[in-house]
Amino acid sequence: MSLTVPFKQVDVFTEVPFKGNPVAVINFLDTDESEVTQEQLQAIANWTNLSETTFLFKPSDERYDYKLRIFTPQIELPFAGHPTIGSCNAFLEFTKNTTATSLVQECKAGAISLTINEGLISFKAALFDFEGISDEVITGYEQSLGLKFIAAPALLRTGPNWVVALVNDAETCFNANPNFAMITEQSKQNEHSGVILAGPKKNATVRNSYEIRAFCPVDTIDEDPVCGSGSVALARYLQELYKFEETTKITISQGGRLGRDGHIEATIMKEADGNTSYHVAGHAITVVNGKITL
Amino acid sequence: MSLTVPFKQVDVFTEVPFKGNPVAVINFLDTDESEVTQEQLQAIANWTNLSETTFLFKPSDERYDYKLRIFTPQIELPFAGHPTIGSCNAFLEFTKNTTATSLVQECKAGAISLTINEGLISFKAALFDFEGISDEVITGYEQSLGLKFIAAPALLRTGPNWVVALVNDAETCFNANPNFAMITEQSKQNEHSGVILAGPKKNATVRNSYEIRAFCPVDTIDEDPVCGSGSVALARYLQELYKFEETTKITISQGGRLGRDGHIEATIMKEADGNTSYHVAGHAITVVNGKITL
Repeated sequence: MSLTVPFKQVDVFTEVPFKGNPVAVINFLDTDESEVTQEQLQAIANWTNLSETTFLFKPSDERYDYKLRIFTPQIELPFAGHPTIGSCNAFLEFTKNTTATSLVQECKAGAISLTINEGLISFKAALFDFEGISDEVITGYEQSLGLKFIAAPALLRTGPNWVVALVNDAETCFNANPNFAMITEQSKQNEHSGVILAGPKKNATVRNSYEIRAFCPVDTIDEDPVCGSGSVALARYLQELYKFEETTKITISQGGRLGRDGHIEATIMKEADGNTSYHVAGHAITVVNGKITL
Repeated sequence: MSLTVPFKQVDVFTEVPFKGNPVAVINFLDTDESEVTQEQLQAIANWTNLSETTFLFKPSDERYDYKLRIFTPQIELPFAGHPTIGSCNAFLEFTKNTTATSLVQECKAGAISLTINEGLISFKAALFDFEGISDEVITGYEQSLGLKFIAAPALLRTGPNWVVALVNDAETCFNANPNFAMITEQSKQNEHSGVILAGPKKNATVRNSYEIRAFCPVDTIDEDPVCGSGSVALARYLQELYKFEETTKITISQGGRLGRDGHIEATIMKEADGNTSYHVAGHAITVVNGKITL
């Protein structure tokens, strides 16, 4: 009993095809969720071989615009950054919606608020803690990366458990040649997902423009090309370090060493109620458009 | 200047979606090869993240039916097995050809003869040598795999440089838990691509039915799900070992440990001129069908 439904492979954090981070999006908006099994969804995500494959379903109630299920080749995730932005873009195209300025995504992590502004799609990150790490572990990561950090790294649980570490400048970050076996060892010992390495760009007048790289060899890939959750982690880390008092946009470049050219905008937002929230925005473009047969 | 052309993602060595080995096939049959650069093709293949992405072009002369260029995420290959079968299937669908029984593929390795018989697509392997390997290296691989071989392994250069090693039965092969770091070390030291581990099935009346696994951690992935070049290597190895005097079909299962269920038919063919040739056949089905925008 074969089922054929709409399919898109979307490039995220770029406006130029093949320069961002891809996500495969499968449109089950007209398929009852009970018609497909967990095993089928996992098998599809294993087969696409992308870091994430997502499935759009009708939402469970009308507070949400759609329900998103997100799978890596191995497991289902409660939430992920670039798949959320890519899937929102696909949802708008699938439903021929050209006017929406805000949407609510239902996913295992809860309700995710999305805003759309001239093609730039933004999500508000869920709350997460800032946690220090020991000097011994910091030294281990410095040795793994073959360089010195300019401030104490911290652990940010933004979905993955990212260690954020800052180096002197963007070039140092770009040129880093990590020892992936050593990072794997450190990550395993400390239950970390990987390291977000960031270096400030020279021309930035305030501390708000960075080159970053995401090393996650303990997972399936050594380096993630363009990373939404890592950008949230960096924004939160910078807030702790520099105590920004006003809403601040952090512009991030990522992926150059992998032949990509990703652009991420992370915002440290000062809310009217005095709280601080974290947002990640990026563009997305559909590269493959067609149908998939199950 | 964006270009939109037909795209298929084809599952190979299976008739059931998501159970085989995928290849992305991009149809440039109506695009002049000079319109796209090596860098563009490589960027697409890097982005799909599949073991191979192929590009169909018009052939350079009328001896060939089409020209195929085959890329991994990192490099262009002269030839590859499952991408050839998947791309032939895509070519037939793109050109709405339902009657062809033989085709000639032009690729960097030369002319590849293909036959099509009730959906089963077969290619004839290029000539390659059978090379012994030293006892020391054999011991290294036994230690890497944590088991004993039942005959001396050999090196077969069937595109990749595969070491073929035989164990007692299909279950031993299926249950092997290799030390990938050790295989990587052995592969690097000896300039091997990886190991084809094979075990005979109990019910086979002649020595012609095998479970195989393809370990290639020195490349981008630890284990290839279903492997055409590895099947050629196994057939050649078995011929050396058992001296089949008549044309013999070797049926191969692969991919179970990765949730796949691939089926490959390798043939040791006794030609009229007394020579022996090697052929690999499998089914292929289109899973994703649409367009790609460059």
